[in-house]
Amino acid sequence: MAMQNPPAALTREKLEQVIEISPFTRWVGTRITHFEPGRVNVEITAREEMNQHHGFSHGAIVGYLADTVCAWAAASVAGDVVTSEYKINFLSPAIGNVLTASGTVIKAGGRQVVARADVYAVKDGVPKICATALATIARV
Amino acid sequence: MAMQNPPAALTREKLEQVIEISPFTRWVGTRITHFEPGRVNVEITAREEMNQHHGFSHGAIVGYLADTVCAWAAASVAGDVVTSEYKINFLSPAIGNVLTASGTVIKAGGRQVVARADVYAVKDGVPKICATALATIARV
Amino acid sequence: MAMQNPPAALTREKLEQVIEISPFTRWVGTRITHFEPGRVNVEITAREEMNQHHGFSHGAIVGYLADTVCAWAAASVAGDVVTSEYKINFLSPAIGNVLTASGTVIKAGGRQVVARADVYAVKDGVPKICATALATIARV
Amino acid sequence: MAMQNPPAALTREKLEQVIEISPFTRWVGTRITHFEPGRVNVEITAREEMNQHHGFSHGAIVGYLADTVCAWAAASVAGDVVTSEYKINFLSPAIGNVLTASGTVIKAGGRQVVARADVYAVKDGVPKICATALATIARV
Repeated sequence: MAMQNPPAALTREKLEQVIEISPFTRWVGTRITHFEPGRVNVEITAREEMNQHHGFSHGAIVGYLADTVCAWAAASVAGDVVTSEYKINFLSPAIGNVLTASGTVIKAGGRQVVARADVYAVKDGVPKICATALATIARV
Repeated sequence: MAMQNPPAALTREKLEQVIEISPFTRWVGTRITHFEPGRVNVEITAREEMNQHHGFSHGAIVGYLADTVCAWAAASVAGDVVTSEYKINFLSPAIGNVLTASGTVIKAGGRQVVARADVYAVKDGVPKICATALATIARV
Repeated sequence: MAMQNPPAALTREKLEQVIEISPFTRWVGTRITHFEPGRVNVEITAREEMNQHHGFSHGAIVGYLADTVCAWAAASVAGDVVTSEYKINFLSPAIGNVLTASGTVIKAGGRQVVARADVYAVKDGVPKICATALATIARV
Repeated sequence: MAMQNPPAALTREKLEQVIEISPFTRWVGTRITHFEPGRVNVEITAREEMNQHHGFSHGAIVGYLADTVCAWAAASVAGDVVTSEYKINFLSPAIGNVLTASGTVIKAGGRQVVARADVYAVKDGVPKICATALATIARV
């Protein structure tokens, strides 16, 4: 859902600055690949230390991506936000050298923003959905 | 809920072996502090590289702990499992040098196990709840 | 997501028969408005006895619609199913004389189907989204 | 969690008055069986028109009970509230002539309250858990 960019909203430039001072986000190596009010996409390069015992990316990384794009999509319309809660369904193992995630605002209310995310594992250039999430992000 | 330990269930010894071959779980430094059929507790030492930009442990780490104790509590009664989905509510910032999590099986069905988790941040020895979660774990 | 209609899948005719023997579904007055493998839409006429104290349709009716279209969309590809769990976000009051809901299968796995739903309140012919949900539906 | 009853909180008397003007709640026949700040229990008598096609109480009724006790438990500490979202896991069929539900506040924050609920079906006087839920309730 395309949205106007109100004064309080986070810009891409500001978000890049937040990433610089976010240790875990930097450890993961999160890169913004799309940014518009109400929609943010990211990607990461999967590394071995992110894996679980079957050799896939751990669900924690998938959950991180889902939460992150929901929060950033919310911030793109609402400025400072914090995740209240999310629910995530794992759909298939995260097998791939790249993981991408797309977050979309469904409703931006006065005090909270509801957003959804899809996470994909990209193997040999082919993306496959591995999780979908629904989140409530609070304005702060 | 205390439960019998059926033949297929994961033992603590087997779980410790799984941890050894789980890169992300080792990166986090997850330690089992309690293990009985239907209930598993863990703790980790919070490190700077796990933080978000305000200096607290990132929600991804909190989510990891919630998912992990739900899955391990489920495995303690059901053996091999995989997380189908979970929902997590963040209750307060994860401020503390140690994080703990407790997972409890609510219902172990024929094909899936429902479990809940609480995550605590321990600061100066005082635990404060920072998240609660409800998960569906599938038998495999 | 359009899907093939496997032998075990529920047909619209069979679903209409199930509705006939489902007291609560009949009490609500649920009508199927679209049926294809992987996607089912319904509508109901809001009645006063379905309301909460502010005069809107009660969240229980909205939740019913979300759960129903997720389960029926899942049944349209998987046959007999039962709802394992769902999560619903309420986005705006359900104000309108008609409520509609659309359920879509996101992933049909071997043992469970993940589906999402949107619920709309239609006032003066204008639909407004009032809830969105994400559900796990188990094959039986 | 026992809590102080702040000035803005809903009293049992006020809640009984709200029930009187809530058509769906009256249709269900909801009775408060316990009320203290942070914890509310209710019960209903299951009727045939609440059933799904297998002759159990419909999940919509179970979901209604879970949502209701979460919202009322939240109101008992926070006054006027509205459900933002909830997630419910169905654990067993709701078979019984009475259904009960218990809602408990986990955390009452400045703008939202997180609560959990358990729903039981009582058959021949024996309660069996049929669902558990986790909800975010917003102050209004």
